[in-house]
Amino acid sequence: MQGRYRTLRLEPDGALAVLDQRILPFKEAWVRVENAAECVEAIADMTVRGAGVIGDVAAFGVYLASKECDGDLACIEAKAAAIRASRPTAVNLMWAVDRMVQTARSCPKEERTERLREEAIAICDEDAARSRKIGEHGAKIIEQIAESKGGGRVEILTHCNAGWLAIVDDGSALAPVYEAARRGIDLHLWVDETRPRNQGANLTAWELQRSGIPHTVIADNTGGHLMQRGMVDLCITGADRVSRNGDAANKIGTYLKALAAADNDIPFYIALPASTFDFSILDGVRQIPIEERGEEEVAFIRGLDEEGRYRQVRIVPEGSPALNIGFDVTPARLITGLVTERGVCKAERSAIETMFSDLL
Amino acid sequence: MQGRYRTLRLEPDGALAVLDQRILPFKEAWVRVENAAECVEAIADMTVRGAGVIGDVAAFGVYLASKECDGDLACIEAKAAAIRASRPTAVNLMWAVDRMVQTARSCPKEERTERLREEAIAICDEDAARSRKIGEHGAKIIEQIAESKGGGRVEILTHCNAGWLAIVDDGSALAPVYEAARRGIDLHLWVDETRPRNQGANLTAWELQRSGIPHTVIADNTGGHLMQRGMVDLCITGADRVSRNGDAANKIGTYLKALAAADNDIPFYIALPASTFDFSILDGVRQIPIEERGEEEVAFIRGLDEEGRYRQVRIVPEGSPALNIGFDVTPARLITGLVTERGVCKAERSAIETMFSDLL
Repeated sequence: MQGRYRTLRLEPDGALAVLDQRILPFKEAWVRVENAAECVEAIADMTVRGAGVIGDVAAFGVYLASKECDGDLACIEAKAAAIRASRPTAVNLMWAVDRMVQTARSCPKEERTERLREEAIAICDEDAARSRKIGEHGAKIIEQIAESKGGGRVEILTHCNAGWLAIVDDGSALAPVYEAARRGIDLHLWVDETRPRNQGANLTAWELQRSGIPHTVIADNTGGHLMQRGMVDLCITGADRVSRNGDAANKIGTYLKALAAADNDIPFYIALPASTFDFSILDGVRQIPIEERGEEEVAFIRGLDEEGRYRQVRIVPEGSPALNIGFDVTPARLITGLVTERGVCKAERSAIETMFSDLL
Repeated sequence: MQGRYRTLRLEPDGALAVLDQRILPFKEAWVRVENAAECVEAIADMTVRGAGVIGDVAAFGVYLASKECDGDLACIEAKAAAIRASRPTAVNLMWAVDRMVQTARSCPKEERTERLREEAIAICDEDAARSRKIGEHGAKIIEQIAESKGGGRVEILTHCNAGWLAIVDDGSALAPVYEAARRGIDLHLWVDETRPRNQGANLTAWELQRSGIPHTVIADNTGGHLMQRGMVDLCITGADRVSRNGDAANKIGTYLKALAAADNDIPFYIALPASTFDFSILDGVRQIPIEERGEEEVAFIRGLDEEGRYRQVRIVPEGSPALNIGFDVTPARLITGLVTERGVCKAERSAIETMFSDLL
């Protein structure tokens, strides 16, 4: 097991550097984000993605805005609004920007930029601490399954990427996996490819490779069959927004896996920090806004050609339109539990309101 | 609406020509199949695919075997056995080969090759007739939905390809769609991409384009969300093998869509000719053999590059293994009905045994 990684860092000159997730795993490159506009771009074009990391990058974006604005509040607020609107579904983004704007409002102009830098670092560090706690709570679930199998290998299915590329430092869904692996539990991951952007095949597989965790990439279509044949003990994914009643918006296709898990009596967990809750939404299935992205993400795909060049090919015939929906909402009734930094919570309004009463 | 197409034809010199489905929609090329070994290869490497077409090509393969064997029965039977084993899941393959071997046994050596040629043509023509009947029975379902929507557009989701590239001449799942379109019903298809081999994006989209039928390609992950949001009126797929109790093996991922349809009260039909039933199997979920294919089909994908060249790129990082399961089994309880050439049958053993009593 290697140590923990971070997907973003502050450079000595005060710029933000982020690992370019668009070209992983085929190339490792860092992109500099020097101002608020570049921050918006990095989030919108998915140079960075993952609910937590989007929030962290957005927080640093507000700090960069303050530098550009020389601490002028109205100027910062305008740029913060643009960052806040850079993607619609992940609520950590809105949460982080709002907290940064609050901080900006609460301090004098001359201290603003420095305070915002500290606040962004604090948001990041708090995320890392939460990620570790999620890992500890979730690892217990994996340990119990390992015990019930007499120490036999635990088979875990995950969708999209909710590892350290998504939430510093261990992720949400993968935090329990990393923690369980550190504790010596024998486990293996089924990694959903996660079309159309292949975050599973590209990011999760790469993360797990680096950490030496056994895994196998499967087409998104495959999980139901594996569950039917007893080849999955546990499903765990991250989330981009969870409503007060426990419905969870996550990468498109999560709902289908939750249905299959329920049909085969397999526990299905969603792992998330509290910042992923949207307590203002009472019915997630109906009310969580769902992002529609460009159809070219379905029609084209990128990979390495025979000569090792990273290149794009068209996989949908010209003349056939495509639709690209980014997320779906898994109804609370299909979720066994929510693994949070405070413990495992039932996906029910009353349980959520009890565990997070101080945040309502 | 254009007319009907066929994906295979007998050449004047007695060889079989098949449309190469591996490179559609990016290139249209016909491949000559001149003997039994080439027939095995064309089926195994998916130059031809689709339950019905596999059976047809296999039938012609037995005829080609007879030519090679100068009508010698033992020789034909040995080659037929190899053809029969070229793929494991689609039962039409076994059904067609068995019928051809039966024919070979029932006629004198000197007439054998000619009789087998006639029998293969008959199998093909019968498939075409069955396809038309499936279309007529299935179109009624679409008509009823159109009426219930006051003539509004009928939204149909399909998975994989079960059009004329899969079963001559109109397909199974697409036969009702083609027939409904001929009757002037306003409809639109959601075409599942169908990873890992993309038969939806590549073959179904291409077929529908040629026929002028409105359609949109979606990632396989998307259907559940569309159903949840009321954007699908009907699901219909083909099948590779249906057991006596109504469980249906079809392209991997079909089961997930059936779960979503059930969860959203959307009718889910499987369309198939009677030759797709395997009456010897009483529990399809447990007993239908499921093909595992090479992991390179998951790790690599083909498409057109910027210069219009058809090329392969790697989309799973080296060092991450992949698993490639070809089919899954949808339990009968999730299937609204089986659309066959004899009418729509409940997916239940008693209903199936009543409608197909003469075939048991």
